[in-house]
Amino acid sequence: MLGVCYYPEHWSESWWEEDAARMRSLGITHVRIGEFAWSRIEPEPGRFEWGWLDRAMDVLAGAGLKIVLGTPTATPPKWLIDRHPDILPVDEKDQVRGFGSRRHYSFSAPAWIQESRRIVEAVARRYGEHPGLAGWQTDNEYGCHDTILSWGQHDLAAFKQWLRRRYQTPQALNEAWGNVFWSMELRSFDEAFLPNLSVTETNPAARLDFWRFSSEQVAAYNRMQVEILRAHSPGRFITHNFMGLFHDFDHWDVGDDLDFATWDSYPIGFTERFPFSEEEKIRYARTAHPDMAAFHHDLYRGVGRGRWWVMEQQPGPVNWAPWNPIPRKGQIRLFTWEALAHGAEVVSYFRWRQAPFAQEQNHAGLNLPDRTLSPGGEEAAQVGRELKALGSLPDGGQAPVALVFDYEASWITRIQPQGQDFDYAEMTYRWYEAVRRLGLDVDIVRPGASLKGYRLVLAPTLPYVSDAAHAAFRDAEGFILFGPRTGSRTRTFAIPDNLAPGPLADLIPIKVIQVSSLRPGLQEPLTGTVQGTATRWREDVEAGARVQVHARFEDGCPALMSADSKAYLAGWLEGQGLRDLMAWCLDRSGLEGMQLPEDIRLRRRGALTFAFNYGNSTWDVAASLGKVVIGSRELKPGDVTILAT
Amino acid sequence: MLGVCYYPEHWSESWWEEDAARMRSLGITHVRIGEFAWSRIEPEPGRFEWGWLDRAMDVLAGAGLKIVLGTPTATPPKWLIDRHPDILPVDEKDQVRGFGSRRHYSFSAPAWIQESRRIVEAVARRYGEHPGLAGWQTDNEYGCHDTILSWGQHDLAAFKQWLRRRYQTPQALNEAWGNVFWSMELRSFDEAFLPNLSVTETNPAARLDFWRFSSEQVAAYNRMQVEILRAHSPGRFITHNFMGLFHDFDHWDVGDDLDFATWDSYPIGFTERFPFSEEEKIRYARTAHPDMAAFHHDLYRGVGRGRWWVMEQQPGPVNWAPWNPIPRKGQIRLFTWEALAHGAEVVSYFRWRQAPFAQEQNHAGLNLPDRTLSPGGEEAAQVGRELKALGSLPDGGQAPVALVFDYEASWITRIQPQGQDFDYAEMTYRWYEAVRRLGLDVDIVRPGASLKGYRLVLAPTLPYVSDAAHAAFRDAEGFILFGPRTGSRTRTFAIPDNLAPGPLADLIPIKVIQVSSLRPGLQEPLTGTVQGTATRWREDVEAGARVQVHARFEDGCPALMSADSKAYLAGWLEGQGLRDLMAWCLDRSGLEGMQLPEDIRLRRRGALTFAFNYGNSTWDVAASLGKVVIGSRELKPGDVTILAT
Amino acid sequence: MLGVCYYPEHWSESWWEEDAARMRSLGITHVRIGEFAWSRIEPEPGRFEWGWLDRAMDVLAGAGLKIVLGTPTATPPKWLIDRHPDILPVDEKDQVRGFGSRRHYSFSAPAWIQESRRIVEAVARRYGEHPGLAGWQTDNEYGCHDTILSWGQHDLAAFKQWLRRRYQTPQALNEAWGNVFWSMELRSFDEAFLPNLSVTETNPAARLDFWRFSSEQVAAYNRMQVEILRAHSPGRFITHNFMGLFHDFDHWDVGDDLDFATWDSYPIGFTERFPFSEEEKIRYARTAHPDMAAFHHDLYRGVGRGRWWVMEQQPGPVNWAPWNPIPRKGQIRLFTWEALAHGAEVVSYFRWRQAPFAQEQNHAGLNLPDRTLSPGGEEAAQVGRELKALGSLPDGGQAPVALVFDYEASWITRIQPQGQDFDYAEMTYRWYEAVRRLGLDVDIVRPGASLKGYRLVLAPTLPYVSDAAHAAFRDAEGFILFGPRTGSRTRTFAIPDNLAPGPLADLIPIKVIQVSSLRPGLQEPLTGTVQGTATRWREDVEAGARVQVHARFEDGCPALMSADSKAYLAGWLEGQGLRDLMAWCLDRSGLEGMQLPEDIRLRRRGALTFAFNYGNSTWDVAASLGKVVIGSRELKPGDVTILAT
Ligand SMILES: [Zn+2]
Ligand SMILES: [Zn+2]
Ligand SMILES: [Zn+2]
Repeated sequence: MLGVCYYPEHWSESWWEEDAARMRSLGITHVRIGEFAWSRIEPEPGRFEWGWLDRAMDVLAGAGLKIVLGTPTATPPKWLIDRHPDILPVDEKDQVRGFGSRRHYSFSAPAWIQESRRIVEAVARRYGEHPGLAGWQTDNEYGCHDTILSWGQHDLAAFKQWLRRRYQTPQALNEAWGNVFWSMELRSFDEAFLPNLSVTETNPAARLDFWRFSSEQVAAYNRMQVEILRAHSPGRFITHNFMGLFHDFDHWDVGDDLDFATWDSYPIGFTERFPFSEEEKIRYARTAHPDMAAFHHDLYRGVGRGRWWVMEQQPGPVNWAPWNPIPRKGQIRLFTWEALAHGAEVVSYFRWRQAPFAQEQNHAGLNLPDRTLSPGGEEAAQVGRELKALGSLPDGGQAPVALVFDYEASWITRIQPQGQDFDYAEMTYRWYEAVRRLGLDVDIVRPGASLKGYRLVLAPTLPYVSDAAHAAFRDAEGFILFGPRTGSRTRTFAIPDNLAPGPLADLIPIKVIQVSSLRPGLQEPLTGTVQGTATRWREDVEAGARVQVHARFEDGCPALMSADSKAYLAGWLEGQGLRDLMAWCLDRSGLEGMQLPEDIRLRRRGALTFAFNYGNSTWDVAASLGKVVIGSRELKPGDVTILAT
Repeated sequence: MLGVCYYPEHWSESWWEEDAARMRSLGITHVRIGEFAWSRIEPEPGRFEWGWLDRAMDVLAGAGLKIVLGTPTATPPKWLIDRHPDILPVDEKDQVRGFGSRRHYSFSAPAWIQESRRIVEAVARRYGEHPGLAGWQTDNEYGCHDTILSWGQHDLAAFKQWLRRRYQTPQALNEAWGNVFWSMELRSFDEAFLPNLSVTETNPAARLDFWRFSSEQVAAYNRMQVEILRAHSPGRFITHNFMGLFHDFDHWDVGDDLDFATWDSYPIGFTERFPFSEEEKIRYARTAHPDMAAFHHDLYRGVGRGRWWVMEQQPGPVNWAPWNPIPRKGQIRLFTWEALAHGAEVVSYFRWRQAPFAQEQNHAGLNLPDRTLSPGGEEAAQVGRELKALGSLPDGGQAPVALVFDYEASWITRIQPQGQDFDYAEMTYRWYEAVRRLGLDVDIVRPGASLKGYRLVLAPTLPYVSDAAHAAFRDAEGFILFGPRTGSRTRTFAIPDNLAPGPLADLIPIKVIQVSSLRPGLQEPLTGTVQGTATRWREDVEAGARVQVHARFEDGCPALMSADSKAYLAGWLEGQGLRDLMAWCLDRSGLEGMQLPEDIRLRRRGALTFAFNYGNSTWDVAASLGKVVIGSRELKPGDVTILAT
Repeated sequence: MLGVCYYPEHWSESWWEEDAARMRSLGITHVRIGEFAWSRIEPEPGRFEWGWLDRAMDVLAGAGLKIVLGTPTATPPKWLIDRHPDILPVDEKDQVRGFGSRRHYSFSAPAWIQESRRIVEAVARRYGEHPGLAGWQTDNEYGCHDTILSWGQHDLAAFKQWLRRRYQTPQALNEAWGNVFWSMELRSFDEAFLPNLSVTETNPAARLDFWRFSSEQVAAYNRMQVEILRAHSPGRFITHNFMGLFHDFDHWDVGDDLDFATWDSYPIGFTERFPFSEEEKIRYARTAHPDMAAFHHDLYRGVGRGRWWVMEQQPGPVNWAPWNPIPRKGQIRLFTWEALAHGAEVVSYFRWRQAPFAQEQNHAGLNLPDRTLSPGGEEAAQVGRELKALGSLPDGGQAPVALVFDYEASWITRIQPQGQDFDYAEMTYRWYEAVRRLGLDVDIVRPGASLKGYRLVLAPTLPYVSDAAHAAFRDAEGFILFGPRTGSRTRTFAIPDNLAPGPLADLIPIKVIQVSSLRPGLQEPLTGTVQGTATRWREDVEAGARVQVHARFEDGCPALMSADSKAYLAGWLEGQGLRDLMAWCLDRSGLEGMQLPEDIRLRRRGALTFAFNYGNSTWDVAASLGKVVIGSRELKPGDVTILAT
């Protein structure tokens, strides 16, 4: 199904009817509204203006559209900030981040919690049972613009309470963090401080705990909204629109409180921002990198426990990346179909009409500011027609491959990269890419989740292996490949007593003696079953007797090793070496892959197989993939072929 | 005529007589003094020490030098700042910018306005009718060191008043800025805030208005000084020394209040700072890029409504660029003649003698610290002799080509670059360079100024086309080429209802549907009458029926199009493509050009033609350019040939 | 002798005995403890816990180890900072630098001086005459993490006093600094201010004086500790562990108050941080650049007036560089022998055991966190055995070459680089490298120290030549080469009246007319006795009649010149040109050199000659170098050969 984001408050009321009718004619079934409209809903403290929104809801519902209503907490109005300036977040340099855009609040400010309750309750009471209301979106893109970590007095106060709950005594905290080092010991929780603005780096254990605390504040804030909405809006779903490329809070935790997940898919802007090579950035500037959208689809399907939408789909060029090219013709349609192929229930475009004013005036919509359909709008209309022709889509099932994705792993490696280019986002993305190039569907899973049913499990790195994660690995049925640094840290950011891989040593008896971070140009070739070159990182490993070594570094140290169905890679691999490694893993797992061209991707949904061409040459779709339902067996650049078996 | 900047307060009084005599012997007629001498004029609050300056003026005037006296407001002394610390400017990060160098004031601080009036009036009363006084320079280099935008409480207070005057009601302001977006609406002008320190970008309409406000504060401050000087110094001229490469306030506005414009010409330092390619920076490191000085000469001739000086001419190596090479032999003479060729009335060197102390001790002068002539001083002396031989120079007339230069265009594209390398300074410079390489003289004109008499008008980009600018384009007699983004924004930074080019659609009926910013390496070839490759920017244009398309992008979209004598270029062109486009424009305008070598430039002044060689090979000056008056028909590297027809 | 840094407070007391015994078995004789243990020594204000440290000292002494005890002032505990937050240093942007790591104090905070006296006295009284105590280390790595310059109110107050003492009257200060420039004149010392946060650059004379003041504060603080320790600990040595690559305070001054110098040798991390070319950084990533350790050995031998240790020797990969590779096998042994070859009395490894917690958990030790010997520990053990076999080492004597190294030269060229890449650290390092490649031993000496006995003296640059330095140059017996900018500034950061080289003009009668800083790619070839290409810098020099010119720039200006035994180089030379210049200097000094391969270095200590191989190919050690005592005549990559004559 298709949806769209709409801002009735931006347009003349006289346009609403026509807008709603045209949405329906494009095949759109869902419309999201309201998430930035606080200053129109409550223009003065305590004075609510419901009329315009009542009318907008009625017009949209009247046209047959299902409404998703956003709570307007991402944009507290000026009068509220002037009354409670202590709501404002504070950056790591101790600079207050002021009014003038959005997300100007700290999750720990008491006045903010109170004001949020008030506005969410007001909106929930007013519209909770509106017949056109399908469900709710809480807030908007938690964490956008680096707004998870705030460094003000309210944040410190809440962190002190959190530490007290977690550690009970200052002695326990000192012990856990190793505060004896550099005389950092605290005599009471009142002496605790935020890990910023120090002379040199602060204790990594403190930083990890502050990150955990900050992430939990987000989850608690969201849960507060969810509870109010559930109370006043029975039978409606509640979701949140997550962002891409964003690891600053634990999405798994927030997802637990939602009915399903949604995310905001801007693959072309994300490609510009991701640490791709210059050559890749140019090559994919107008199409996005072929795994950019898919990676997130698979991630948020996991976060939503199988259910998810795209809440905001890029409809054309945007405004916020360093460069914002016009997408290649066909790309908006391709993105839409790709989301559906990965299991999206709704793909909702952002936005109905390009706003001619304010910050996002260069962000395309399905319509131009002059009320005519944009090029992206034309492509959405085509998908609308195709969807109608195709009928309802089958359910997808479990994928053969699981990739373990962990927000704490991102925090740990950012707190302590050890080598400047050890980037968790890149690492997980490249492993995903390598296995997707072999034609396989992937589920992205939470550490500790059951791994039953997966033939292959990939853990690119998981520095802290919790008891739950350890148990899931132990009980897995398939082949597991662990990447470097896995098991290298305890829950309190220390090196395990038995050295890395810590608790995993009972699954694969090895010991990491030393680690080496490698500057660009410094390379460590490895030879054996898998050939390649480690860059960025390698480890010196001592392997126990029952460990089989499949590849070694030039100095003889084990590079790839396994014990039974558990393997460990002691370095950073990229490119062909990484793809060969994945092929070896498939072999070990008994999975069949196929060598896809660099820019072709496949995805199955029930009996349907979808093929996507991100490249510049036509691909002949193999007969074995099924009978063409939409598109052509000659898969042209920018095109989609849907096959049924 | 030649001038020099002199600081009697820096030297033993016993040297003054000799200095003045030696100035005269070099052919110097004008001397600028006093602009940083506040602490010597008023060493304690209210206690004025006029004696030394009386004597200095008398010595200089006695030697026959005409004096330009600077008001000393660029350097308020420590006692003044200690009394009124709120005078200090505040940077965009909310850091107060302190005492210790210069320009440490906010244009909006009430105490500063009052103190400025007081000191200007004191100096004007003392010397306004001094017989040696030729005229005044207000302050020094407004805006140097990023001092136009200040972000303190006085700035906010003045901005609120400005907004009140401009918009009358908060509703009108909310409407104009589109504040409904992200709930940014204000209930009163008291709720207004400065557009900095927000979580993410602020409203571009607010930022543009803050820039306009800040620019108007400069003009008002300068006007205040001008009014005092006019009152006390009848018959003397008033000017200001503008900087090169500086767009932060509207020079056209400030120029309106002056008798003529002057600027400070440091072409070699500017070449180091300008976004040239590395190869260009190396190639021109010791000569400056061949259009660097000339562009500014033509700009400030415009700002001065035909009358202008160089107030500070680079006399040798300077101290403030990342690297400061010794100019190539002959270059100081070349710069001097080039300024004269473009119409300068006086070229005044900075400074008479290199100061051995304080911040600028590595800045060359006409003399070394040991009182001997420097290499640059020798070249100045040669110009002095040549000028004497040549006699008075003829007046210049209107050039055949006008280039429309707009400070708001610079602000708009910096507020909203959309592509990271869309740089207004570069764009206008490259268009200027391309047409100058064809041997043509150029006037740089203000948008809205009459374009009568010009055969060719270039508007590299003009996002906001005012009614006056629209009328001037409509009434122009020559051929006009508009660059991309022209007409793409309204006065309040919104997309026009009819889309870009907005009001110009009646002159050339096209509509810009989408814009694409292109990262380095992403290119859009165009073919047709003009061949080339768009980089950085392209647009998707729908062209009306009566529009002729001269070149198209590969996807068929129009790249270069015209209707009657108005043409539009839908992308960023550089290099050979841009030069070919200019040649095509000449052709359309009926102008004759000549293909000059890369490093040769010509400029006419009445019956004289000047040729300059910035390159490394000799150029044979064509007989058609006239009879050699100074120099040789073989124009050697670094040399000047002057011809008469 | 060998030593190790040990933190008994980090480990279970039950491990201490075994640790001490194992130290002894590795050949370790010295152990440093205590320098970060304030929070354990004084866990609450005024409550001292001596028990654990008494026991630790007794265990170590009981095992026969000589103890170096650190004063714990590098890590004031949280309770102290909470009581006196004004102790915290302030950065140049006016941000207080908080608790959470180390070195969080200003050298000028009165409360800090008082608290430091108190704790140093307490520790000195307790252990000053402990039988196991060999000596003291004051504080830890003064200046680490940019902690010399602090910009707070206490710093300003102390600076005002310093200025008053130095200049007596504000008039004298104004005159000395040239404050008439830009009206910076002060009416009283109360008006003085710190040279930060101004609109543009502040007066370089003020910045130099603030740097001198800050350096003197360090020396005074250290002297305060030394005096307390001397009073309570008769017969024990006092030292401080300086850092590598660190020029922010004058180490010569601090060294004057110590019995000998020590430094912390992390050659691989320093190689990553030093401005080497990318190619060099890759090539030497795992070995360090061949002169990195040696340069510092020779420097700190000078600072210690002939006596010095390595207090912290890198034992494996570290944690603090952008990348931290595992050292090449053999490198830890090589580093140890190299320090001994240059005269170290003790080489002390940092640290005994890798800490599994807190900031340095990725810093290797001689032991792994699991209490087994690390790879670096194995190499240390080998040195222990070899040392035992070799017996005591002979004393070294004066080297034939002196290199003049000046901290003020570093400050002056950083305050006023004039060309962005004029880097004093690089310049001195490259001159050192060039002469070391010719096989010569070098002493690094203080300007003004006697130069008697040196055949060759190198002064890469010495902008300010004091009377003492001038006298030492005048009285030198060998050949002297001065580099560019030497003598270019007075004591108060002004250009000398007679221009550069100022006072040296009586030794070599030349005058520097203009200086040229050259951006990368801009080159000035020089030809003559020495060929080469000046990059970064060149000067226009006028040479007096009795000056002999040995090489000239293309425009004929002198590039290399001499008068009698004093030579001057008027540009920046690197690479082969610089090596050729050094060979020419050897020739002039009557010294014999040998052309060593790029990665081989030699060093003599009495009758022993040590050869080190940093490269990838074997070097055949010439028979003339002596008889092999340790190692082989085939010097393998990473190996050491010791020869006796
Ligand atoms: Zn409040
Ligand atoms: Zn005031
Ligand atoms: Zn205190």
